[in-house]
Amino acid sequence: MITVALAKGALLKDSVARFAAAGLDFSAVLDKDNRQLMVPTPCGRARALLVRNGDVPTYVSYGQAQLGVVGYDVLKEHQLPVAQLVDLGFGGCRMSVAVKASSGYQRALDLPAHCRVASKFTHCAREYFDSLDLPVELVHLNGSVELGPITGMSEAIVDLVATGRTLRDNGLVEIEELFRSSARLVGHPLSMRLDDGALTEIVTAIRAVEPSKGEA
Amino acid sequence: MITVALAKGALLKDSVARFAAAGLDFSAVLDKDNRQLMVPTPCGRARALLVRNGDVPTYVSYGQAQLGVVGYDVLKEHQLPVAQLVDLGFGGCRMSVAVKASSGYQRALDLPAHCRVASKFTHCAREYFDSLDLPVELVHLNGSVELGPITGMSEAIVDLVATGRTLRDNGLVEIEELFRSSARLVGHPLSMRLDDGALTEIVTAIRAVEPSKGEA
Repeated sequence: MITVALAKGALLKDSVARFAAAGLDFSAVLDKDNRQLMVPTPCGRARALLVRNGDVPTYVSYGQAQLGVVGYDVLKEHQLPVAQLVDLGFGGCRMSVAVKASSGYQRALDLPAHCRVASKFTHCAREYFDSLDLPVELVHLNGSVELGPITGMSEAIVDLVATGRTLRDNGLVEIEELFRSSARLVGHPLSMRLDDGALTEIVTAIRAVEPSKGEA
Repeated sequence: MITVALAKGALLKDSVARFAAAGLDFSAVLDKDNRQLMVPTPCGRARALLVRNGDVPTYVSYGQAQLGVVGYDVLKEHQLPVAQLVDLGFGGCRMSVAVKASSGYQRALDLPAHCRVASKFTHCAREYFDSLDLPVELVHLNGSVELGPITGMSEAIVDLVATGRTLRDNGLVEIEELFRSSARLVGHPLSMRLDDGALTEIVTAIRAVEPSKGEA
């Protein structure tokens, strides 16, 4: 039985659609009344594991799921040994540095050395500011990162931006883009090597679907 | 203006009730239509910061909030420099080791050395297994930790248990209790030292309320 780790939340609907094109029907996970975390396909060939976004690489790297769908941002932050197989195109967003609109900062290098930067993605932020040779103090937050500058705890944030509405609503502006992210199909490296053809068939079918950039 | 960091979720209602006894009306945060993360009291003396559970100690340790309410489990996991002022009694739960009911393990020391243990609270788990001199591989998960043993990724989990229903629903049983947790009123140490009386008045008023164990 093939197990696929799917992230709850924004990527779920498009993930299910892409697996449908490969003949795997995970639509039961979209049922609002579904409370199960392990959902088999009607055909019995596969099952979905419904997990948090950040846990998809964990299940795939340990081989508890042979395949998974997760944002590139999560892959980059967690650095776990999973194989990136297909850029699925949807779930488009960017990892950006943002500051208060009233701060006057125009680019990351305008930030004062040793200032505080709040982020859920402290690994990505560390790598970025190191590449600029700008020493900053990173403050790890689990949510509502925009509160960092609003409360005065941090000068800037590093966060995912999709439409930019959250930033605007909170008087923040983007000043730098670290990288662009989108949903990726990932695989457990050893399972891919030992594959008798079943996994490759799914990956090939998913890859054949025209990337749905418009859904992003 | 006094800022109080309140955790969204299970502790919020009781937190608001305890501050009401101290004359601070944060009831606006309980409004289902509230989208604001910073909510002033009608009297204008204070405001609530609505943040994730795990972020309360961060805001209080940086002094962006002078007071906060958060579970002891979060304090123990994050080890940030905040002052524990009052055990509020509500939000009672325990940090426990649980395994599959079918596994036959009766206590933590029955677990095989180097087995995997999944947890959101890897710091607490590490400390516990170190105290037993039992080397285990910790797998950090962000949610649905019960999937660890179900999928076969881990032999055991360390997680918060309140009613025990999630464990039962997933065929798991508790075999050890690490510690008991409840909501705590915490303070920013420097703000408490520089207090002109306003913070102490609030803390004293909250402490005077009979601990509401029944709400747990």
